[in-house]
Amino acid sequence: MELLFLGTGAGVPAKLRNVSAVALKLLQERGAVWLFDCGEATQHQILHTRLKPRRIEKIFITHLHGDHIYGLPGLLGSRSFQGGKEGVTVYGPKGLKEFITVTLSVSKTHLQYPLNIMEIEEGILFEDKDFIVEAKKLDHGIDSYGYRIQEKERPGPLLVEKLKEQGMMPGPYYRELKEGKKVVLENGSVINGVDYLGDSQKGRVVTILGDTRPCTAALQLAEDADVLVHEATFADGNEEMAWEYYHSTISQAVDIAKKSNAKLLLLTHISSRYTEEDGRQLEAEAKQLFDNCVIASDFLEVKVPLQTE
Amino acid sequence: MELLFLGTGAGVPAKLRNVSAVALKLLQERGAVWLFDCGEATQHQILHTRLKPRRIEKIFITHLHGDHIYGLPGLLGSRSFQGGKEGVTVYGPKGLKEFITVTLSVSKTHLQYPLNIMEIEEGILFEDKDFIVEAKKLDHGIDSYGYRIQEKERPGPLLVEKLKEQGMMPGPYYRELKEGKKVVLENGSVINGVDYLGDSQKGRVVTILGDTRPCTAALQLAEDADVLVHEATFADGNEEMAWEYYHSTISQAVDIAKKSNAKLLLLTHISSRYTEEDGRQLEAEAKQLFDNCVIASDFLEVKVPLQTE
Repeated sequence: MELLFLGTGAGVPAKLRNVSAVALKLLQERGAVWLFDCGEATQHQILHTRLKPRRIEKIFITHLHGDHIYGLPGLLGSRSFQGGKEGVTVYGPKGLKEFITVTLSVSKTHLQYPLNIMEIEEGILFEDKDFIVEAKKLDHGIDSYGYRIQEKERPGPLLVEKLKEQGMMPGPYYRELKEGKKVVLENGSVINGVDYLGDSQKGRVVTILGDTRPCTAALQLAEDADVLVHEATFADGNEEMAWEYYHSTISQAVDIAKKSNAKLLLLTHISSRYTEEDGRQLEAEAKQLFDNCVIASDFLEVKVPLQTE
Repeated sequence: MELLFLGTGAGVPAKLRNVSAVALKLLQERGAVWLFDCGEATQHQILHTRLKPRRIEKIFITHLHGDHIYGLPGLLGSRSFQGGKEGVTVYGPKGLKEFITVTLSVSKTHLQYPLNIMEIEEGILFEDKDFIVEAKKLDHGIDSYGYRIQEKERPGPLLVEKLKEQGMMPGPYYRELKEGKKVVLENGSVINGVDYLGDSQKGRVVTILGDTRPCTAALQLAEDADVLVHEATFADGNEEMAWEYYHSTISQAVDIAKKSNAKLLLLTHISSRYTEEDGRQLEAEAKQLFDNCVIASDFLEVKVPLQTE
């Protein structure tokens, strides 16, 4: 599980930072990639990575401002052109369906895979045996959502050595033991899988927020998160402007991370007014407030570490 | 008057070539830039040039395939964000208005300048004292237009030295002479402006075609053109595939240039299957057929020379 930033700028593309997109790579976990936002030229950014568009299984749009969605039609079209056959589900606020259907239909783009567009409200958007995704509305003037991606607890590994020591050699019944089930052996003895499983692996939490002022929903979504991706459009001292444009400053994002007990804070959606040198300076200042804090740059990749209790 | 290629690829963006866009720089002629097609990330390409989005006065869309229009909403929005105040007119096939209005309205993009969208048919689209633009339908499966931009003949320069030699010193009446009018001097003598003008400057013709098979409309639009921009999606030998997908090969584009008596042929919309080395090889082959022929690359700039009769 890794986060790969594809665009970390705000509003308009610049040489230093493209507009918003971040990929959550779940290749080991489910052989898939989930994309969060898709600003213009996200597919161009992907050309400079090892990410395969056909691996993109879900796209979560935080809000419908152009710098978060204008890359969608091109990405969806190119994924088809390049032979993607597996379906894609796109989640986002009301209006998303009109945007996608009109752009694809006007341009006569016929996708060679099923496209499912889900206009969302607050709540659980998706759940399977491995993951659960929840959305809440933030504070951005227009509907802007934050997403909490919760990995479910996974059973511990089968303690093969322990089984062998006790004379139970590998066989098809291992699979049932691995699932924690009871098995009756040929000699009539009963063994219980749960006695032969290691510690279960606690699931990780990644929280990715759309553009927002500091708000309660952000705190809730980020509670105890392993990684929090929060916007920080402006440097400290611009609180009034941040409020006026429904954005956050660096300190405000740090405050959310601290109060929600997030372990790692990744700041993104950085205004193009800040140079590369400014970015380093801003990060140094942010680290004074919260040590585990990074200002993301385009193509930054961050591993989400396994939880150790 | 210069052509600046911003995207010379076909279908999908690639590292070597972005999707379609070419700027006709008319900075000396009218302090403006006209853009032809606007594939995704055209605004990103512009960041690597000296072109100012606020200078873009007109955008001509050849057809509505995604690789020719997906950069429009972002470019229009950023032009506003960056302080563009002068109006823009966008010309293109039916469907263009829906594309632009839906993408801008869903994303709550409020332009700070007047936007005029003209859904076109064949004929004269625009005429003023300096330029006339004509459109004709090509052969591409969906409506695809070619544009002929005709610069009007301009009167020759005022022969100031000749006037001075004959004792007529500079003054406000020079302006009327420059316009070819008659002027009565204080001493009662009448002088005729046309007697003091140099040779008139013949207007230039630039023809820019959308995706197409070889067709009669292409020949007509390109007649005696100073520069013809023609697609060449495929190399020679792929005539069947080119026909099937409504495209042209290099030889077919050369054939149009020769038959229409175009002086310079710029080939674009090159399939991403061809490497940089392939491109050089293809250009060498094309030059065997027509010496004044170039395969355009992204950021290639070509001056349209003044006509000398």
